[in-house]
Amino acid sequence: MKNVLVAGGAGFIGSHLCDALLARGDRVFCLDNLSRGTLSNLETAFTSPGFSFERIDVANAQTLEAFMKDAKIDYVFHLAANSDIQASARNPQIEFSATLTTTWSILSAMRNVGVKKLFFASTSAIYGEQGERESREEDAPAPISYYGAAKASSEATISAFCHMNEIDACVFRFANVIGPRLTHGVIFDFINKLTADPTTLKVLGDGSQTKPYIHVNDLIRAIIKLCDQSKGMSVYNVGVETSSSVSFIAEIVREEMGLSQARIEYGTEKIGWKGDVPRFRFDLTKIHATGWRAERTSDEAVRQTVREVLRCKR
Amino acid sequence: MKNVLVAGGAGFIGSHLCDALLARGDRVFCLDNLSRGTLSNLETAFTSPGFSFERIDVANAQTLEAFMKDAKIDYVFHLAANSDIQASARNPQIEFSATLTTTWSILSAMRNVGVKKLFFASTSAIYGEQGERESREEDAPAPISYYGAAKASSEATISAFCHMNEIDACVFRFANVIGPRLTHGVIFDFINKLTADPTTLKVLGDGSQTKPYIHVNDLIRAIIKLCDQSKGMSVYNVGVETSSSVSFIAEIVREEMGLSQARIEYGTEKIGWKGDVPRFRFDLTKIHATGWRAERTSDEAVRQTVREVLRCKR
Repeated sequence: MKNVLVAGGAGFIGSHLCDALLARGDRVFCLDNLSRGTLSNLETAFTSPGFSFERIDVANAQTLEAFMKDAKIDYVFHLAANSDIQASARNPQIEFSATLTTTWSILSAMRNVGVKKLFFASTSAIYGEQGERESREEDAPAPISYYGAAKASSEATISAFCHMNEIDACVFRFANVIGPRLTHGVIFDFINKLTADPTTLKVLGDGSQTKPYIHVNDLIRAIIKLCDQSKGMSVYNVGVETSSSVSFIAEIVREEMGLSQARIEYGTEKIGWKGDVPRFRFDLTKIHATGWRAERTSDEAVRQTVREVLRCKR
Repeated sequence: MKNVLVAGGAGFIGSHLCDALLARGDRVFCLDNLSRGTLSNLETAFTSPGFSFERIDVANAQTLEAFMKDAKIDYVFHLAANSDIQASARNPQIEFSATLTTTWSILSAMRNVGVKKLFFASTSAIYGEQGERESREEDAPAPISYYGAAKASSEATISAFCHMNEIDACVFRFANVIGPRLTHGVIFDFINKLTADPTTLKVLGDGSQTKPYIHVNDLIRAIIKLCDQSKGMSVYNVGVETSSSVSFIAEIVREEMGLSQARIEYGTEKIGWKGDVPRFRFDLTKIHATGWRAERTSDEAVRQTVREVLRCKR
């Protein structure tokens, strides 16, 4: 049994990770400032005796360091970040505070307390616009969003802290993750829009944006499989080989909500908003070589998620 | 004539840049918190009517933004950073505050005020340990020092701000820069050590570390030549093709100080300190294609610098 800290553990992905770590027998200390995370995401986790939650902002290095020491933490899962790219496009300072400062704080506390194991949730957004080319782990980051910049910065910072303090870090660059407890993104938006107005679904952009969507259950399986394998810093692209278009997602949401009469209105722009990456493809060779592979295609993940989210709303 | 802001302008490189910008006719606003920079570095600059200095910490975004607006700044040269890698190896927070926060502050102020031109002083330290391989601009950063991490983070941040705000940025990754007004590094240390004890020079490491040293005059010539050429973000390695070993530098310092009797004592480690990169080579194809090339070899730059520094001490 290990004492693991999940920073940002009340968020969408963090809460699923807490559930999985508890299932494998870890003692899980979940920290979250509840800026985006919610206690309702932790309903399952709270039923386990190995779980505890503290409302702590991990950007506060001193509080965090004291906590790590008291709890005798062996492993830190760092998922504390802003998750709303459109919000930070309007106010970049959000990324500096919520995404980058948390990373420095966590690494500084680990360095001072002597915690040697880290998992970090990074993003495909660090690659920026690569067009049809499949992004590979060894490509130089070229972020076009403040979110991507803060995550790329976090990775660079982890690189130095790993070297200087013999920390082992497993870094996952995610595609778009979907599933129950989703808090933002295209599926979330479409369901909310059609709930508010069941006659019309207005889509940002022309619907042609195509991205790979991975179901959170597939992602969590990958984290559990690989988080203890790193020596030094290991970076993996994590995603699915298939993609789903915005227009496909719009149709699935309409269908699953039983609103086949609703009109879908598309915009004319190729991208939904500035900083959005209209097309994106991952090279998954490295993670597939570990034996992990997503069980669902992107389209299957989309349909399953739409059903799961609708079930929770009922 | 342009209104240019030089952040970190009282430092070693920044002060030489102020001199060069004044020489080409710019109105130069030099900002520095004088944590490492000194007013004596600006003695030449202060003789020019186009020069002014304000003691402002550019990490303070609000103060900086008000200044940029009042001064109608057209161009920002960002050289504000910690420059003592060994100090931040002991206390990484120095890099977060002095190197990374300044970058976010400068970019946020530029975004809010509408300044569209940036020069950024980056570093070879972003590449980490590449062994005998020549590092190229398109290589992914893999910093092993907190300094390298903060500079790699700054580059990622510039990438996003450029895209989101139509800013043009010229980014130089320097080799080791030497010349008058030097404040740290091997030449500076050796001169100080031999001044304190003219009988013995103790060297950190075994003396085999070999790095390219570029004279600050060559670097400044490259900045002036290329700083107005970027569309979007351009990154250049800037250095010399030749290198100098620590043992060569020790011998030159001993010779130029007229202390040929002094004993040089080497350590046994390949590196001087943790986070130091023992060997380093740059690919300079990209900057050489612009027509710029360093006038001095690394060894010539070392000898010239030793003479210049000794002349100032007398």
